[in-house]
Amino acid sequence: MATKHVASWVCDLQYSHLPPEVVRAAVQSFYNWAGCAIGGSNHEAVQIAHKALRPFFGPPTASILGHKGAVLADPQHAALLNGIASHVHDYDDTHLDTIIHPTGPVASALVAAAEWHARTNPDATATAAPVSGKAFLTALVAGIEVECKLGLAVWPQHYDVGWHITSTTGSIGAAVAVAKLLGLDHAQTVQAVGVAATQVVGLRDMFGSHTKSFHPGRAAQAGLLAALLARQGYTSSETPLEAKRGWANVVGATKGDDAIQADLTNGGGGGGEGGGRWEILRNSFKPFPCGIVIHPVIDGCAQIHQDMQRQGLGPQDVERVDAKVHSLVLELTGKTAPQDGLQAKFSVYHGGACGLLFGKATPSQYEDAVVQDPAVIAVRDRIRAETDPSLAADETKIVVTLKGGRTLEKHVKHAVGSLEVPLDEQRLQAKFLDQCQTVLGEHTERASKALWALEEVDDVSSIVSFL
Amino acid sequence: MATKHVASWVCDLQYSHLPPEVVRAAVQSFYNWAGCAIGGSNHEAVQIAHKALRPFFGPPTASILGHKGAVLADPQHAALLNGIASHVHDYDDTHLDTIIHPTGPVASALVAAAEWHARTNPDATATAAPVSGKAFLTALVAGIEVECKLGLAVWPQHYDVGWHITSTTGSIGAAVAVAKLLGLDHAQTVQAVGVAATQVVGLRDMFGSHTKSFHPGRAAQAGLLAALLARQGYTSSETPLEAKRGWANVVGATKGDDAIQADLTNGGGGGGEGGGRWEILRNSFKPFPCGIVIHPVIDGCAQIHQDMQRQGLGPQDVERVDAKVHSLVLELTGKTAPQDGLQAKFSVYHGGACGLLFGKATPSQYEDAVVQDPAVIAVRDRIRAETDPSLAADETKIVVTLKGGRTLEKHVKHAVGSLEVPLDEQRLQAKFLDQCQTVLGEHTERASKALWALEEVDDVSSIVSFL
Repeated sequence: MATKHVASWVCDLQYSHLPPEVVRAAVQSFYNWAGCAIGGSNHEAVQIAHKALRPFFGPPTASILGHKGAVLADPQHAALLNGIASHVHDYDDTHLDTIIHPTGPVASALVAAAEWHARTNPDATATAAPVSGKAFLTALVAGIEVECKLGLAVWPQHYDVGWHITSTTGSIGAAVAVAKLLGLDHAQTVQAVGVAATQVVGLRDMFGSHTKSFHPGRAAQAGLLAALLARQGYTSSETPLEAKRGWANVVGATKGDDAIQADLTNGGGGGGEGGGRWEILRNSFKPFPCGIVIHPVIDGCAQIHQDMQRQGLGPQDVERVDAKVHSLVLELTGKTAPQDGLQAKFSVYHGGACGLLFGKATPSQYEDAVVQDPAVIAVRDRIRAETDPSLAADETKIVVTLKGGRTLEKHVKHAVGSLEVPLDEQRLQAKFLDQCQTVLGEHTERASKALWALEEVDDVSSIVSFL
Repeated sequence: MATKHVASWVCDLQYSHLPPEVVRAAVQSFYNWAGCAIGGSNHEAVQIAHKALRPFFGPPTASILGHKGAVLADPQHAALLNGIASHVHDYDDTHLDTIIHPTGPVASALVAAAEWHARTNPDATATAAPVSGKAFLTALVAGIEVECKLGLAVWPQHYDVGWHITSTTGSIGAAVAVAKLLGLDHAQTVQAVGVAATQVVGLRDMFGSHTKSFHPGRAAQAGLLAALLARQGYTSSETPLEAKRGWANVVGATKGDDAIQADLTNGGGGGGEGGGRWEILRNSFKPFPCGIVIHPVIDGCAQIHQDMQRQGLGPQDVERVDAKVHSLVLELTGKTAPQDGLQAKFSVYHGGACGLLFGKATPSQYEDAVVQDPAVIAVRDRIRAETDPSLAADETKIVVTLKGGRTLEKHVKHAVGSLEVPLDEQRLQAKFLDQCQTVLGEHTERASKALWALEEVDDVSSIVSFL
C-alpha cells in the first residue's frame, strides 16, 4: 500500500504542481550540491576511487564533476564518484528533522542519468533526448521528498541502531528520481523502489573514514541501477517498503506499521494534492564543513571575530573562551587535540578556533596544515566547552575573556544554516565560489550563473559541461 | 579485534594448509556453481539484467557464463550477471547450518577478478598474470569460510528479522576472496571487509521475484568493488564487523558480542591452525531446484516412482498421497495451486507430483508449461501434506494409496543433498550435464572435464573460456 502510494505520487507529479518556493529550494539544493561535488572532487577519497575504478568505466556519457565536463564515465561510475565528492567535506545539505543529506544520492544519480539520456539512444525505438531543467527539477523534488519521508518513517530508531540514514533512504530517493526522469510507469516505479530498497548501504561505524562519503555515492549508484533494471521489467516485491520483512521493518523501525504508513503517505508522499508539507522546504545548507552540532560555536566565534576586528583586537588579546553548548556537542565533537583535518571535523575546539581566528570555517580551514598550525592550536587550547541542558541544538552562549579581564559575549539563538537563519542565496553563492575557484578557475562564475538558471534550460547536460 | 583476526587468517591462508577434503569440497562447490550459472544464463531475469546493463559495460575482460566465454563484460558486470544466473533456479549450494548459498557471491566475484587479472595489466608496475587453480581455490575457500562464519555469528536472528543471509554475508566473503586473489595486505584486507560490510544487500521480502537472485549477484559486485577500492588505499572502519554500530550489531544479531566474537574467530576464521572446523565441509548441493524444505518429499516421491515403475504402475493407479512433513514445509511451501514456475518453487505439492510422475525435479520440471500441465495438476491435487512435529527438517514419511487400497510407503530419514546423504560426484555431474546441455551443447563434456581438473590448471581463465 505505502509503496504503491509513493509510486503513484511520483508518477503523477508534474512541474506545474510545484509551488515557486519548492522550485527555488530545488534550484538551491542542486546549486549547493554541485559546489560540494566540484569542491570535493580533488579530495583523496575521490581520487583513490577514481584510480581504482577507471579501468572499468563503460562508454563515456556522464561527467565526473570538477573537470569542466571534460572527464566522462558511464553513468553508474559518474554517480558513484560525484556522490562521494559531494559528501566528502561534510559540507552538503541537511534535512534537519532526519539529518539526511538529501541531495547527494538523488542528484548524483539524476545528473548521470540525464546526461546519458541526452547523449545516448536509450532504446532502439527512441532517439537520444535532452532533459529540460523543469523535468530535471521535478525528478529531483520527487527523489528528495520520497527520501525524506522514508527518513521520517524510520527516524530516530533507524539512526540510533547504526544506519547512515542519508544512504539507506538515498538509494530509494535516487531510484524514484531516475524513474521519474526516464518516464517509468507505475508498475516499473514500484519495482525500482524494490530493487533500491533491497540495497541497504551505510553503517555509521564508517564515520571518520573515506567510506562515509562512499555511502551517498553508492546509494546513487544503487538507485540508478534499480531504475535501469525496473525499466526493462526486472521484478521485485510489490510491497518492499511496508511488508513484514520489507525495508522499514528490517532496517530497524520500531514505531509500528501505522505510524510508518502515515509518515510515508503524508500528503501524497511529499506535499502536493494531499496538502502535506514539502520536505525540501525543510532542507538547509551547511555554512561550515563539519558536523552540524558545531555550527553554533563557529557562528558565535566568527561573530566575535568581527567584533574584535572592529575594536582592533587580535588572538593575542584572548585569555580564554567559554562556550555553553547543547549536550550532543561534546558527545559527538569533543575531540580536544585533533591531529588532522578529518579528526578536526569532530572537534568543537578546532571549529571555534577557526571562527575566532579567521572569522570563517571552509574546507581550507580543515586542511591538515591548518589543524597542525601552532597559532591555531594556541587559540584552540584556550577554548572550554560545557554542556548546558537548557540550550537547543542550534544554540550556544559564548564568553571571550580578554587579557585584563574584559569580556565579549555572544548568544547565538539559531546558528546560521538553521531553518530560522538559513544560508541566504548570497552566502550560498559565496560558498560555491569559494569551493569551486581552485577547481574551475575562470569558469567558476559562468558555472554559477548557469546553475542559477537551471529552471530555464532546455538541456541540463549543457550546464553540466561547465562543471 | 574480530575483523583483524579474520583478515590475518585470510592473509595467512596457503594452499598447503588446505586438507585434501577441503580442496575437493571447493572443486565440487565451484563445479556446482558453474553448472548453475550456465544453466541459469538463459533465464529471463538474467536476460533482462543483461539487456538493461549492456550499454554500460566497461572494457571486456570477464566472461558472462553461458556463452562459451564469447561474451565479455567488465568484471563488475560479469560478477553481477553470473551471480544472478547462479541463483535464479534456486538450484545452488546450501551451508545447512545457516542456509547460506555460499558459492554464488564468492565465485561470481572471484572468476571475474581472476579473468580480469589474467587479461589486464592491473598496475603500472605489474604485468597481467594468470591465476592458477590452486591460488583460485585458496581464495574461494577463504571467501566461503569467512562468509559462513559470519552467518553463524548472526544466525538465526538475522534471518528471522528479514535479511537474505546469502547476500548479506556474501559481499564480505566475496571481498576477502578477491582480496586474497589480488594479494592485498592485512590493512587493505581490513578495509575491504569494511567497504563490503557497509553494503548490506538482501531483504527476504524479495523472495518470489527476480530480485531474490539479484542478491548474490549484487553481493559479488559489492565485494569485488570493496577489494578494488581497498587495494588503492580507500579507508573504512578498522572494526567494521564487531563495532557497536558495525555490521553484526546493526544487522540484527542479538546474541551478544562475546558469542559473535567466538563465532567469527572460531579456529582462525575457518579451520586452519586454530583447529576450528571447515565450513565448506558442511556445504551441500541441491538435487532439486527449489526450497530445501521440499527436498525430502521430492526424494521420497521419486523413490516411490521407481518402485512403481518396477511394478508396472503409473500415475493413473494412484488414489492419494499422504506426506508427513516438518513444520517449515507448510509454512514456507504450502502453495496448493501454483500458477507458474516461480510459484511452483514454493509448492510442496508440485514438487511431490514431479517426483511421482517423472522421478526427478530439474529446472525443466519448473517451466510454466509443466506447472500448468493437467497431468501434473491431476497428481498434485491428490497429494496431502500434514505437519508431524517428530520429523526433522530433512525427513518425511510418505504413503501412496493405490486405487484398490494397496499402499506404497517410504520413510526418508535424510533427504538426498543432506550432509548424511550428500549428492555424490556422479549425481553432481549428472546435474551439471543436464543443466548445461541446452546451453553449451557439444562443449558440455569438455567444460565438465576442465572444471574437475581445476586444481591442476595454471590459468583459471583458460577454463572459463569453455563456459
